Amino acid sequence: MFESAEIGHKLSKGEYRSIEPVLRADLLDAQYQLLKDARTPVIVLISGVRGAGKGETVNLLNEWMDPRHIHTRAFDNPTDEEAARPPMWRYWRALPPKGRIGILFGSWYTGPIIDRVFKRSRPNDMLRSIEEINRFEKMLSDDGAVVLKFWFHLSKKRQRKRLQSLQKDPETSWRVTDRDWDFFKMYDRFYRISEEALRETSTASAPWIIVEGSDPEYRAVTVGRALLGAINEQIKKAANPAKTKTDAAPLIKPVDKRNILSGLDLSHALTKKRYETQLRKYQRDLALLTRHPKFREHTVIAAYEGMDAAGKGSAIRRITPALDARLYSIIPVAAPTDEERAQSHLWRFWRHLPMKGRFTIYDRTWYGRVLVERVEHFAAEADWMRAYGEINDFEEQLTRNGAVVVKYWLQISKEEQYRRFKERQKTRHKQFKITDEDWRNRKKWDDYQEAAADMIERTSTAYAPWTIVESNDKLFARIKIIKTLCERLEQALSA
Amino acid sequence: MFESAEIGHKLSKGEYRSIEPVLRADLLDAQYQLLKDARTPVIVLISGVRGAGKGETVNLLNEWMDPRHIHTRAFDNPTDEEAARPPMWRYWRALPPKGRIGILFGSWYTGPIIDRVFKRSRPNDMLRSIEEINRFEKMLSDDGAVVLKFWFHLSKKRQRKRLQSLQKDPETSWRVTDRDWDFFKMYDRFYRISEEALRETSTASAPWIIVEGSDPEYRAVTVGRALLGAINEQIKKAANPAKTKTDAAPLIKPVDKRNILSGLDLSHALTKKRYETQLRKYQRDLALLTRHPKFREHTVIAAYEGMDAAGKGSAIRRITPALDARLYSIIPVAAPTDEERAQSHLWRFWRHLPMKGRFTIYDRTWYGRVLVERVEHFAAEADWMRAYGEINDFEEQLTRNGAVVVKYWLQISKEEQYRRFKERQKTRHKQFKITDEDWRNRKKWDDYQEAAADMIERTSTAYAPWTIVESNDKLFARIKIIKTLCERLEQALSA
Repeated sequence: MFESAEIGHKLSKGEYRSIEPVLRADLLDAQYQLLKDARTPVIVLISGVRGAGKGETVNLLNEWMDPRHIHTRAFDNPTDEEAARPPMWRYWRALPPKGRIGILFGSWYTGPIIDRVFKRSRPNDMLRSIEEINRFEKMLSDDGAVVLKFWFHLSKKRQRKRLQSLQKDPETSWRVTDRDWDFFKMYDRFYRISEEALRETSTASAPWIIVEGSDPEYRAVTVGRALLGAINEQIKKAANPAKTKTDAAPLIKPVDKRNILSGLDLSHALTKKRYETQLRKYQRDLALLTRHPKFREHTVIAAYEGMDAAGKGSAIRRITPALDARLYSIIPVAAPTDEERAQSHLWRFWRHLPMKGRFTIYDRTWYGRVLVERVEHFAAEADWMRAYGEINDFEEQLTRNGAVVVKYWLQISKEEQYRRFKERQKTRHKQFKITDEDWRNRKKWDDYQEAAADMIERTSTAYAPWTIVESNDKLFARIKIIKTLCERLEQALSA
Repeated sequence: MFESAEIGHKLSKGEYRSIEPVLRADLLDAQYQLLKDARTPVIVLISGVRGAGKGETVNLLNEWMDPRHIHTRAFDNPTDEEAARPPMWRYWRALPPKGRIGILFGSWYTGPIIDRVFKRSRPNDMLRSIEEINRFEKMLSDDGAVVLKFWFHLSKKRQRKRLQSLQKDPETSWRVTDRDWDFFKMYDRFYRISEEALRETSTASAPWIIVEGSDPEYRAVTVGRALLGAINEQIKKAANPAKTKTDAAPLIKPVDKRNILSGLDLSHALTKKRYETQLRKYQRDLALLTRHPKFREHTVIAAYEGMDAAGKGSAIRRITPALDARLYSIIPVAAPTDEERAQSHLWRFWRHLPMKGRFTIYDRTWYGRVLVERVEHFAAEADWMRAYGEINDFEEQLTRNGAVVVKYWLQISKEEQYRRFKERQKTRHKQFKITDEDWRNRKKWDDYQEAAADMIERTSTAYAPWTIVESNDKLFARIKIIKTLCERLEQALSA
């Protein structure tokens, strides 16, 4: 892949002088159009070898365009807040909102490539990373982002010369460190491994553009034109959105109209006495488990979904008394804020991701995408269809980082819901809990049931299984919820 | 102050059983009213001695109310992201939005008190902290927040007994550490110093409530009732807002109608040649200054304000080429997002505060409060009047943390503005920069001038002076801006 970036590409100063003013004006135009449309984020990755002009090129892009609407982020060692979360968290934090350009120096490629170069990881680790990256970038581009990846290359000979000449000049010698030379010693290995990574991740939706780094004019125009082309293409696409397609497997409606929820036995119940004994037992267990020294290496992510009035809130209130208030947070998921709407649908969940050692409860979750947004047609079919896979990836990353992801679907019967709605209307301090919207949702009972059944089928994974909670009897439901939580947590702590 | 919390306050179990259900229901009602109104954040500080039931009480509040709308935050050692910013940053991050209750374990009092107890600071340091805290809390309460500060107290004898009994019980012994006993040795000094801090910071708008911590029922009801009372009072107040008053000194209109801006000589100009030489010189200086090793201990906060079309953007673009794109960020300040509107006016600036070693440019700033919000009546007079002092406090904190705060007011004449507006309308790639709003603002020229003159008078401080930039000639203006920046930065680095 790199051969064509070792042939000494060049642009004469004269050519550059005639190209630059036009390119610059066009880029500025494109940037303002992007900003005005506010539909598309542009994500530019800057990678490659040391001394190939990455910094100079980015500075130039900032000069050519309006730097006020470009976010440039460089990634060095993770801060401790970043280290206490899954590795992708720091990149999610840096994603530009719609309409803006985000330039990322160093990226999700840095870790996998460098770890492999210095043999801190095995070949299979890199393969897995590559696969995850491809899915992540596909998600970004499916969401309408422009993802452009520049790799700045220098041949071994040229890199040596470049480092030497930087070192000789007293004004730039500080820029060359021992670490650069350590890296240079690994040139061949780095070449081989990064070529493999690039080959496997250069896709139609997020291509790599290899830039020969030796000639400043050549590399500037190459990057500028690629960026301009990609932005303009996306602006056109966004103006005439084609019906998006999905490559997710189609959902099959069961011919007998039965699903995992319709067959549920909702008659499970507990006596008050048995409930109280069990609640005490499990609250105690939970209190001890979260105080276990190994808990600090984990997080609990407890996700609650269910039909309206299924008892999510009251079940949550049976968990929290076992926990120290300093330890847990509850995130009630409502409509996204305007900052959240300007990002990918999972962004708002990444954003509040807990650090290690914390216990986080979500009252409704990222599954809104395949429940309410599907049923109410807030999301296009192709978009919610791909969300199943995106969510599985998300939860896998959480789990691999030590999270115990416990997901509950609280199921009640249609009759029980009616009874609870009526009761809420009668009880003064519960009236706020019942709105016209609840009655409207109820009319779509079957659609919600179908959506929930599909969701459970597609997202119940070995690492983050769904627990279906028969909730006609609140006491039974609460015990099943806290018991499951204790079991999952115990399992994780004893692993 | 603590004497009355050593008399053995108690509530019998019987009394508690009759009080608790009502108090609990009332608190829940108040919480939902708060949420519905979405006008008032409630900030509850939990402080005091070890073993006095702070954690238990907070857990109880979370049980009594709906924990989904309570944010509980405990503060331990700062993370490295927090340590790289002014000390108050971590608390600003934790402030609840309007309608929510934020419970803060540990607070802005912890540092000043503990530092003084262990003699890491001098008496005057604590006095200064106290003064700052008072101004900070006044700002919160002027903004409509309920600020309630609970101090959990135990007499020396009781604290010793409490720690001993926790230690004896095998189930709680892990909760008592050597650090607790180290603290206990300082009991008398801690008593004296915290009493002083509390006395000086117990104000009408943010009172301290001393809670005797030995009896669980007594302390729970005391805290619950105080909270309920404060929330209900605020709900009533917010429903019938009285005309707010300010204690800021009144603004005096000069009888001769002249001010610092009207007397400005706007005829300063530079030749193109001289401009280019100077620009090269100062860009080079700036490049070297920001690469100085000591720069890593500083931040630059460059704030741009000025009349429309005064040339802020183009001046900014003369600064950035001297900087590495990885180093700086530009924050264009537009209308607040909905998350920002749910907080104090300075919150959105605290939020994006740069870490040490960074260079941040604000294109329009926190001065919007006393410029556009004043002139357009978006803020009540009492609110923008107090903003001068609040902003001075903000900038003082920045400066003390190593920031170089450079503020520019770009002034042009009314005629020059007209000329530039007309030119923008004619030039294709500048048309987006001129809107109806610009013409509307122009009609209020005198009001904006008056507001700007008042602003400069009230907020030009020794640590963060305004630089007034005569901008009829763009070349002259750009050089004055970059030159000032270099001078200020050089001064800071050589200090």
